[in-house]
Amino acid sequence: MNSETSLLLTDLYQLTMLQGYFERGMNETAVFEFFVRKLRPGRGFLMAAGVEQALDFLEQARFTAEELQWLRSTKRFSDGFVDWLADWRFEGEVYAMPEGTVCFPNEPLLRVVAPMPQAQLVETRLINLLNFQTLIASKAARSVLVAPGKLLVDFGLRRAHGAEAGLLAARAAYLAGFSGSSTVLASARFGVPAFGTMAHSFVQAHDSEIDSFRSFAHAQPDNVVLLIDTYDTEAAAHKVVELGHELAGEGIAIKGVRLDSGDLGELARRVRRILDDGGLQATTIFASGDLDEYRLRELLARGAPIDGFGIGTRLDTSADVPYLDCAYKLQEYASKPRRKRSIGKATWPGRKQVWRSYDEQGRMAGDVVSLEDDHQMGEPLLVPVMRGGRRLTQPALEEARRDAADNLGKLPVHLALLEEGPAYPVEIAPALQQLAGAVDAQK
Amino acid sequence: MNSETSLLLTDLYQLTMLQGYFERGMNETAVFEFFVRKLRPGRGFLMAAGVEQALDFLEQARFTAEELQWLRSTKRFSDGFVDWLADWRFEGEVYAMPEGTVCFPNEPLLRVVAPMPQAQLVETRLINLLNFQTLIASKAARSVLVAPGKLLVDFGLRRAHGAEAGLLAARAAYLAGFSGSSTVLASARFGVPAFGTMAHSFVQAHDSEIDSFRSFAHAQPDNVVLLIDTYDTEAAAHKVVELGHELAGEGIAIKGVRLDSGDLGELARRVRRILDDGGLQATTIFASGDLDEYRLRELLARGAPIDGFGIGTRLDTSADVPYLDCAYKLQEYASKPRRKRSIGKATWPGRKQVWRSYDEQGRMAGDVVSLEDDHQMGEPLLVPVMRGGRRLTQPALEEARRDAADNLGKLPVHLALLEEGPAYPVEIAPALQQLAGAVDAQK
Repeated sequence: MNSETSLLLTDLYQLTMLQGYFERGMNETAVFEFFVRKLRPGRGFLMAAGVEQALDFLEQARFTAEELQWLRSTKRFSDGFVDWLADWRFEGEVYAMPEGTVCFPNEPLLRVVAPMPQAQLVETRLINLLNFQTLIASKAARSVLVAPGKLLVDFGLRRAHGAEAGLLAARAAYLAGFSGSSTVLASARFGVPAFGTMAHSFVQAHDSEIDSFRSFAHAQPDNVVLLIDTYDTEAAAHKVVELGHELAGEGIAIKGVRLDSGDLGELARRVRRILDDGGLQATTIFASGDLDEYRLRELLARGAPIDGFGIGTRLDTSADVPYLDCAYKLQEYASKPRRKRSIGKATWPGRKQVWRSYDEQGRMAGDVVSLEDDHQMGEPLLVPVMRGGRRLTQPALEEARRDAADNLGKLPVHLALLEEGPAYPVEIAPALQQLAGAVDAQK
Repeated sequence: MNSETSLLLTDLYQLTMLQGYFERGMNETAVFEFFVRKLRPGRGFLMAAGVEQALDFLEQARFTAEELQWLRSTKRFSDGFVDWLADWRFEGEVYAMPEGTVCFPNEPLLRVVAPMPQAQLVETRLINLLNFQTLIASKAARSVLVAPGKLLVDFGLRRAHGAEAGLLAARAAYLAGFSGSSTVLASARFGVPAFGTMAHSFVQAHDSEIDSFRSFAHAQPDNVVLLIDTYDTEAAAHKVVELGHELAGEGIAIKGVRLDSGDLGELARRVRRILDDGGLQATTIFASGDLDEYRLRELLARGAPIDGFGIGTRLDTSADVPYLDCAYKLQEYASKPRRKRSIGKATWPGRKQVWRSYDEQGRMAGDVVSLEDDHQMGEPLLVPVMRGGRRLTQPALEEARRDAADNLGKLPVHLALLEEGPAYPVEIAPALQQLAGAVDAQK
């Protein structure tokens, strides 16, 4: 039972509710939408991501014989119900914002239209997939915005929350504009460019630091990036200069050095001087260690001569804001709009569309959320991505990455600068407000 | 390429360093230890977890033909090196604190002793597995401490960071003392008891709320827990009373109600009164929605009549502290102790053991970290768990859960109460301090 594909990776209540729907024959069309209720403090926008994995899941989801056998063994479910699960397939329609689209609270990022037992069962995993990549893409985009032109590499796999988090964080960061990731599997699976240097253990395992540098350079002559903070950063920079002249004779260039501890800005300045004085002007400086968009902005504002950054733990865990206040809610069942009115968690009923307008400079000026057929000014953001349980053509990751860059280029100025300012305007169209009132009045 | 088992789920530098070791024939024994450098603010202790999955990984790790083919296709590595990877196996020794052990910074939780190319390559995934479950067990233990005797259920899968995070968070929370989880796969894979109620969509899909309750009760007569906040919580509680009398005639009892929004403490009080006045004294109240140990403590201090809690997002993401400041560092190579001296990240060299002493009440009084053979007073915490790449007998999850409860019962009082107080004493033995000085002097 592979956790990434098993339909048992769900909440128990999905199965108990399903048995309820099965027994009552409640098989009418349900419409669910995934959206974010509100932004957590310090965040001004989101970037939609994870649609590709959501569609993979919907296309491939089925119960295996082993899973059905296990369900039977629990004695929680009737035999008739478990037999029926054997034929469970997702055969519905899906609409979504393309990955890389900048978006905001109360806007549906994805809509599922399918018979209730199909649309309900997929809730848990859909949220699980969409929450995570949208979270990470939204976080990564912030580093991309504060460090234009810098090499940004995801280094977070080791402290990501498990295997899939590490893999998909690499994908989401690349989508948002990172140059690549240290995670090899992200390169094999998604074509995310792989980057890497060396670890302290490699330096420590050699009896002298310069010998470890020499050994690494000979093993990886095309990608000589040396980690210089294991013992004493400035002393190591002098060794790099010495080695640089030696290796030049063999036709090997030292491409870069990496700093991973201490005052990165000050050390970068001193190391830059040592390298320049030693004739290694072309050797770049790469920094890592507890970085995020706040530290990047601070380092760059101080003029630190750093050419690239490895951003790890705080990116892959979205450390300051590790989850989205998101939900997947029933908006229509059996052709009737539905609405939840729970305190602080009320939803907008019906099938919805989001329309985006731009100002004269081409920057995003405001969105309107309306009922699907209530056309508004601007560009509609949700597009069909699946019909009859089969995906329609999806943008390749490279194309989604270009869309993401295009979206980030159109952000309102204060959002692009990660500065405080007015919330981006998202208006609820009058007809939608009226429908919500009408639904409330029926209960 | 399944991300949970692929050896490509690693940092690129592991492979580039490995090629360096391969080319230089550096195959001597390396000793790495996994430890936490320091606790993040607000945390007083850790609970070791994830050893079981770490051993699974070490036992099963190998490169598949498809992965080797992909590595060749990148042109980054020599053919000889990729051929050699085909036979890569982990055949080393592992020592670890048993899962459920309470532990502290600077204490090794796990030690790997193996030829360098084996011990190095596993770094990324070992950290990935040990960081996450230790993080979640440590977080879950805090709810267990503040809510003794309450039913605590993990509800976090949907906002956990991907599939494996959801699955393993359920396991780690159960290990730490939770009653179970809503995640079905955690039940199928690990025997974690499964709990579940119903979602708002189930209520919304029916034309009346009481009809949805009736439908659910008939589908799950042994587990009737009704969600009562979809429209108006108190009105729904009155409907529960009405239905309770109706169902009693059919021999079905309403086991509980769930609150998921609003002022949970105040609503619980009102609902309790409605249920009691209606003769449903045996119907319990279960609460969920943005809960964590801080909210639990506050609700219980105010005397909220809540019998159980569903704790989701903030548990599975460890929202206030979403990562550990942990590392897997080379402490010895080719029989020589090694030490990293990077600013703020210096390590203690050599193979180490942790010794724990207790006071007269049986509470933990202090630990000593020493070289492995430098016996100290107290109980040694690290035990052998793998030899020659094969695991030794491991405690079953239920046994580890009992050990965890036993450990939590022995915490110093202020740590058990989650109160501010002195840091738990962890002493570095004199011989270890001397060794560190001697290693520094050699460089």
